[in-house]
Amino acid sequence: MQALVEALRQALGPAAVLAGADVPARNEKDWSTLPPQRPALVIRPTDTAGVATAMRLCGEHGRALVPQGGLTGLCGGARPEEGGIALSLERMTGILEIDPAAASMTVLAGTPLQAIQQAADEAGFFIPLDLGARGSCAIGGNLSTNAGGNRVIRYGMAREMVLGLEAVLADGTVVGNLNKMLKNNAGYDLKHLFIGAEGTLGIITRVVLRLFPKPGCTMAALCALDRYDQVLDLLAGARRGLGPLLSAFEVMWPDYWDVVTRQVPGVRSPVGSGHGFYVLVEAQGMEEAIDAPRFQSWLETQAEAGVVVDAAVAQSIADVKAFWRVRDACAEFPQVLGPHEPFDIGLPVGAMDDYVVQCKSALEAALPGVVALFYGHIGDGNLHIVACLPGAVPQPRDAIVEIVYDVVRTFGGTVSAEHGIGLTKKPYLGYVRTPAEIALMQRLKAALDPQGLINPGKVI
Amino acid sequence: MQALVEALRQALGPAAVLAGADVPARNEKDWSTLPPQRPALVIRPTDTAGVATAMRLCGEHGRALVPQGGLTGLCGGARPEEGGIALSLERMTGILEIDPAAASMTVLAGTPLQAIQQAADEAGFFIPLDLGARGSCAIGGNLSTNAGGNRVIRYGMAREMVLGLEAVLADGTVVGNLNKMLKNNAGYDLKHLFIGAEGTLGIITRVVLRLFPKPGCTMAALCALDRYDQVLDLLAGARRGLGPLLSAFEVMWPDYWDVVTRQVPGVRSPVGSGHGFYVLVEAQGMEEAIDAPRFQSWLETQAEAGVVVDAAVAQSIADVKAFWRVRDACAEFPQVLGPHEPFDIGLPVGAMDDYVVQCKSALEAALPGVVALFYGHIGDGNLHIVACLPGAVPQPRDAIVEIVYDVVRTFGGTVSAEHGIGLTKKPYLGYVRTPAEIALMQRLKAALDPQGLINPGKVI
Repeated sequence: MQALVEALRQALGPAAVLAGADVPARNEKDWSTLPPQRPALVIRPTDTAGVATAMRLCGEHGRALVPQGGLTGLCGGARPEEGGIALSLERMTGILEIDPAAASMTVLAGTPLQAIQQAADEAGFFIPLDLGARGSCAIGGNLSTNAGGNRVIRYGMAREMVLGLEAVLADGTVVGNLNKMLKNNAGYDLKHLFIGAEGTLGIITRVVLRLFPKPGCTMAALCALDRYDQVLDLLAGARRGLGPLLSAFEVMWPDYWDVVTRQVPGVRSPVGSGHGFYVLVEAQGMEEAIDAPRFQSWLETQAEAGVVVDAAVAQSIADVKAFWRVRDACAEFPQVLGPHEPFDIGLPVGAMDDYVVQCKSALEAALPGVVALFYGHIGDGNLHIVACLPGAVPQPRDAIVEIVYDVVRTFGGTVSAEHGIGLTKKPYLGYVRTPAEIALMQRLKAALDPQGLINPGKVI
Repeated sequence: MQALVEALRQALGPAAVLAGADVPARNEKDWSTLPPQRPALVIRPTDTAGVATAMRLCGEHGRALVPQGGLTGLCGGARPEEGGIALSLERMTGILEIDPAAASMTVLAGTPLQAIQQAADEAGFFIPLDLGARGSCAIGGNLSTNAGGNRVIRYGMAREMVLGLEAVLADGTVVGNLNKMLKNNAGYDLKHLFIGAEGTLGIITRVVLRLFPKPGCTMAALCALDRYDQVLDLLAGARRGLGPLLSAFEVMWPDYWDVVTRQVPGVRSPVGSGHGFYVLVEAQGMEEAIDAPRFQSWLETQAEAGVVVDAAVAQSIADVKAFWRVRDACAEFPQVLGPHEPFDIGLPVGAMDDYVVQCKSALEAALPGVVALFYGHIGDGNLHIVACLPGAVPQPRDAIVEIVYDVVRTFGGTVSAEHGIGLTKKPYLGYVRTPAEIALMQRLKAALDPQGLINPGKVI
């Protein structure tokens, strides 16, 4: 290792190489529940050439490395190996170019999402990708997990926001291009290899993002409904009536609603309690004078048709924030519930409530007294679950996970809608992907990284 | 070959195997200008298992095959080899399922695009993918070339409309899944390997498409502008003012305009002639009473700001069609211009007019008297060109192609925005992709099809 450290210092400068006691604690783990592991070495290049050099030197010394961005991943995808090497993109930050005509922004992969959102805003544009970790997460990590967030129903996943991408392969080759064109079909579109691959096929170094027009106004409503078929009717009605303005369709089941409105400070229910379902509908318009009355009248139509039982429409930005607070209150579950298991599953939208009923009853049968709360981005087929057995030490983690994923398997769902596989979900990949699919993933990994030098042991 | 024919007949039934004189002429070529080549054998399976069996048997006999869909490709991607084997998906047609809650449709890959559009329409949904060949092209081919069309600015390329995809690999393995969820990040997203790969990495057999809400109304305007910076201003204004309703932004340069309005029957100019640029702006709204006045007032703002010199707004569906007729008149260039070379290039939007000026002057310097017309989906960075030297027999094809692509290279553009590479653009792939990118494409091809059994010699 010492020879490698010397070679890296020589090639990249001393500030780019932190070894032994100089390795910061932050590089020991991501936001998953896995215990920290201490790398012997953190490499921090400042440009693509530096990443390529680091990759090549590590390969020459037969050492693998683990790419790290903002370290906010929830599944251990950026977890370093004990005594291993981490390659951090923390010094590769910055906006390289904003091209208003192409509506594109070129950034270094270590740039935090929030800095990108702000730069877009200052340039008169909008970056729709948004998630709780925005201040810490890096865009390279967002793309490596193909992050989702709240507005996928309108803008798509992180993947859909990428025009161009550059990456460094395991042998140090730099591939990709900083394409700004929406349409480019000259040969294979290589960027899709690296997006969602959780840093196992290459290290994303620079990215061209698509910029969107700033929304002129935001409308939101909190609706109470009796039955899941009404939730589906409301979703269909929102797709038709609000068209591409529909920017979020978040459903909360009653157990979730009751916990957050009763136990999370500052959360209030604008529609009372005791309903079967609660739906937060959001639309982004261009002009308040036109789009707010449209939203209001669309909602009235839904009420007249008996689809919603009760509804509150946001009258101000403060209301919109208050409505989102009910949905975002899940961030406070650690305080409210104590130790619990969080899930990020996907299901066909029509089967969502059947899944909830079946999963809940399987959990209750196996673990009497279990608390299981269901909520999520239902318009995207994405359900979040938190589950715990109050008072149990340790929590029956394995039993909960097994039941939740077992029912996912019977419904043809996915064990990861937006968080990725990393390490924690690896045992369950075979629940939702066929042996042939996993074999093809392994074939790709072997083709791009035959020696297993990048992020070994992750995903597959 | 006879042993293979027997084995195929036995496995797939006699109707699935056409050999020798029974091979239809239609399987000899696609819509490219390459001369026909007659395959010795056309295999026509009716399901995925049949495709897998055909693939496996061909492999066992050491024979490659060329996948064929609707045969409407423009670059020779589906051109068979003389005396070779074509695998046609023409009997694999049909809608397998429409799931209104998931807003998804599952289809067999040989299904013509128009049949898919109609089925979506009957189910109350909308398939935004649309192109001139809609009646003949198959969805599997659309995905293999990642087709674009007119409304990419709003809905994205064909790639963005795919939720799930199944394909058969060179060794006969069936991979992929009929995923219906917008969000699914469980392992590598394998569908992107096959989309845009022009049938070189696998044969697409079944597809799950995303359905969109039907637009409630369509607004269109034909605008005349003086300068390209005004075109960019109008585009920025349309993105801001029309937001996600903006569904097309088509620009026509004056030479194009003059030829189609003077020489193509039934085309009239609603804004006279003599302008610097002509732009067709289209928006799709949810409700005519709200969105038509919004469109009208947006356009008035553009006129008041001096961005547009003149503009005509469609007052009826017939007007919308008449406006599109100016843009779609390019389909009649074979009659109007005689033999000519068509192009489908991409450029950063801001550099588009500089490209046109430089390309035109290079063509005129090399080929005095050349006719070169420029038009395209400028909102997507996609420029079409037709060029010819009137009276020349044969046409100076190579000189024209070399000049057009040489200038593309200096502008950092692409030689294929939406038609693909196939055979005809293979010599120019290196103009717009780096050696490292092409090497990675070859590495993928070798990993997925080590014996070169699927569509050999295409793309790379």
